[in-house]
Amino acid sequence: MIRLTSLFFLVSFFSFSYAQNFQIDSIQLKKVYETVLTNGDVYENLRSLCKDVGHRLSGSNGAAKAVQWGKIVLERYNLDKVWLQEVMVPHWVRGDIERLDFISNGTIYNTNCTALGGSIGTNGGVLSGNVVEITSWKQMEELGEKDLSGKLVFLNRPMNPSYITTFHAYGNCVEQRHQGAAQAAKYGAKGVIVRSMTLKFDNNPHTGSMSYNDSLPKIPAVAISTVDAHNLSKLLKKDPNLIAKMKLECKTLPDTLSYNVIGEIIGSEYPEKVIVVGGHLDSWDIGEGAHDDGAGVVHSIEVMSLFKNLGIKPKHTIRCILYMNEENGNRGGKTYASFVKKSGEQHLMAIESDRGGFSPRGFSVDGSDSQLAVIQAFERLFEPYQLHIFQKGYGGVDIGPLRDGKICLVGLVPDSQRYFDYHHAPTDVFENVNKRELELGSAALTSIIYLIDKYGFQQTGFNQ
Amino acid sequence: MIRLTSLFFLVSFFSFSYAQNFQIDSIQLKKVYETVLTNGDVYENLRSLCKDVGHRLSGSNGAAKAVQWGKIVLERYNLDKVWLQEVMVPHWVRGDIERLDFISNGTIYNTNCTALGGSIGTNGGVLSGNVVEITSWKQMEELGEKDLSGKLVFLNRPMNPSYITTFHAYGNCVEQRHQGAAQAAKYGAKGVIVRSMTLKFDNNPHTGSMSYNDSLPKIPAVAISTVDAHNLSKLLKKDPNLIAKMKLECKTLPDTLSYNVIGEIIGSEYPEKVIVVGGHLDSWDIGEGAHDDGAGVVHSIEVMSLFKNLGIKPKHTIRCILYMNEENGNRGGKTYASFVKKSGEQHLMAIESDRGGFSPRGFSVDGSDSQLAVIQAFERLFEPYQLHIFQKGYGGVDIGPLRDGKICLVGLVPDSQRYFDYHHAPTDVFENVNKRELELGSAALTSIIYLIDKYGFQQTGFNQ
Repeated sequence: MIRLTSLFFLVSFFSFSYAQNFQIDSIQLKKVYETVLTNGDVYENLRSLCKDVGHRLSGSNGAAKAVQWGKIVLERYNLDKVWLQEVMVPHWVRGDIERLDFISNGTIYNTNCTALGGSIGTNGGVLSGNVVEITSWKQMEELGEKDLSGKLVFLNRPMNPSYITTFHAYGNCVEQRHQGAAQAAKYGAKGVIVRSMTLKFDNNPHTGSMSYNDSLPKIPAVAISTVDAHNLSKLLKKDPNLIAKMKLECKTLPDTLSYNVIGEIIGSEYPEKVIVVGGHLDSWDIGEGAHDDGAGVVHSIEVMSLFKNLGIKPKHTIRCILYMNEENGNRGGKTYASFVKKSGEQHLMAIESDRGGFSPRGFSVDGSDSQLAVIQAFERLFEPYQLHIFQKGYGGVDIGPLRDGKICLVGLVPDSQRYFDYHHAPTDVFENVNKRELELGSAALTSIIYLIDKYGFQQTGFNQ
Repeated sequence: MIRLTSLFFLVSFFSFSYAQNFQIDSIQLKKVYETVLTNGDVYENLRSLCKDVGHRLSGSNGAAKAVQWGKIVLERYNLDKVWLQEVMVPHWVRGDIERLDFISNGTIYNTNCTALGGSIGTNGGVLSGNVVEITSWKQMEELGEKDLSGKLVFLNRPMNPSYITTFHAYGNCVEQRHQGAAQAAKYGAKGVIVRSMTLKFDNNPHTGSMSYNDSLPKIPAVAISTVDAHNLSKLLKKDPNLIAKMKLECKTLPDTLSYNVIGEIIGSEYPEKVIVVGGHLDSWDIGEGAHDDGAGVVHSIEVMSLFKNLGIKPKHTIRCILYMNEENGNRGGKTYASFVKKSGEQHLMAIESDRGGFSPRGFSVDGSDSQLAVIQAFERLFEPYQLHIFQKGYGGVDIGPLRDGKICLVGLVPDSQRYFDYHHAPTDVFENVNKRELELGSAALTSIIYLIDKYGFQQTGFNQ
């Protein structure tokens, strides 16, 4: 009887504690959401990053300007520390001219094209040759040197629209862009043309990173819009002898010095234990890098702003990192991870926003089952804010190098339907970001960080 | 012992039945989603409705054209029956001129304005007078006749951005537009200026319906953009004697004949039992009515297309209704409900899409607890498609008159963040609808209708 009574009190105590915590946390989350939706800086910060800085590829003047911008903006929020972390970055430049035309039966067809990041140029001249369309690696292998040598290989396998999450479609397609030039060079091709990585059928070319195989010749690589890819495919069916003429002035300069921009609030109880939030400051050199990853940058800054403005004094150190060079090297992410290894600092969680400024849906957790369980325990608190994805999944490129079997890596998951409409394209501009959708992302990040800071991963004190 | 064994078999039977049904239904939903995402007509149908027909206010040539358009498009899908249902509709026309200027210290400030639907005009002349800003009904009452008589009342209470669902913000604000003129007329005001119902701070005026009190004078009513409302408020603080000059040519003509457009697939087992899916064919007379409610129209048509193309033979009659006159009278919805009452047809469910073509989040159910429970039992099937809202809530304007305590009314719930950026504004055009987000809405509607048709509300056969 005595044992039953104790059990009863124990259960009551925990239930009360849960109910009480739930109520306190609900109120705190409500404050976070209300503040960002009525009085947030995140949209204005994005406007400023897009319009006052613009695009900011690693090594460019834009990137240098963005570093100063990030430092000045973070300094506005009276954090305990704002600092720059040196990062040596690749320095690829597009040059002034990029052009790809097709000539068939005496007619010249211009395209909207964009050199892939890292591509070599055409040596001051024009590269011309026949085009062979490829929609699978198997097909490329079968055609081999006999059919591809001296040709331009046209990689035209579209993203599969039947995936619900567009990132899956991208993930199953993007190796054409990454490896197309290296693979085609194996068979003696002299250039590659890649269908843009987007589900949208329009005239915008989408750039992105590519790589070479050092033991093979380097050949120029260019992306064309989905409309141009469609038209080229049709033209090739009518005229297999069509000629492509490519002129690219892009080139790679020596590595250059840049920086991760870091701001932090030092933890009141565990200053040596760190929770990281970040996005990447660099972008491609077309558009304004608004969704990719201006959104993640201003989301992360807003987390710091909200902690300060709402007077939340974190127990752990909250560190905002604006990483340099996610797009073509991930040097910022790697540099930060090396720094952590050397410093011996313990990191509880690193969360990244790098999937655009769209309505948030939840979090994907690259961590242990028990870490996932802790995050899932908060799901009910997020119900009023329409977050519903709390599952295992990818964290993000910048935070990837931190993986050590202990830290919990988390990615903010916004609605993905529109992301690849803008990704790496001239249309990735401020005007294509919705204010409220962007704001909700900051609130979601701040809320999950507030909760992990409060309960940690060891003992949540939050289980019913 | 025998009873326990029976129970075991019974439980096994139900579990097996559930698991088997779950698998069959999962496969069917996957087909629905894949078909619409790879080969759907919904986006092209919306393009055609927006560009070939354009806006289509009840009584207008556009509306007459839309009726023909709807009939022709539905006829394409080889339904069992396509018919027009006569509806007498109001006929309000905007006229050629609508203008609102402010004059302060000799400077003229033009605005972007739009007459509210149903407003009278300014009798061929210009209405001019001082402006009094109002942000609450209480304030209006306190000022009363003494301060408002002969003035233009400026209703400037903004939508509250802190609501997560923007419809709540709209619902708590829109009575200014609906009742502003009637309320202000009580105190002798001679016109009203209403802040546009949007959370976006921009230059677009948003129209919408308003009503008069027949026992009071009718006064003209106009909406201005949020930027103009902000500027007017600022100007008034500097110069309370500012003069507004309003010229509107709008007027109401006699009611005119129009139609609901209806297409149906007759049920194989219960032809007399009906499941309705619909959206409204009419729109406001600015923009193209793309989200409001072109999306709902093409969503509903796509449901029929998917049933036919996938060879799903429904047990119940599936009826697609493109309602006329949701915007300013709901005559279509009322006419259809009267028809149902007379015909004695039993309706299981009526589902409406009238919240835009955005990423679907779930369904709001205006029905009994047991009907809600049946719909909630399907939630797991929708998880791969990121639908997560399955709760009690509003169905829709057009289906509202069907409410009889038996039918289950359901509203498709898309993400609401961007809806009021476009709602009733010149920007509600095809270009502002995302193809995939639109497609996902059709798939969600088709899926829930497939499930309700299969299991009904009496015995789901789907409970674990």
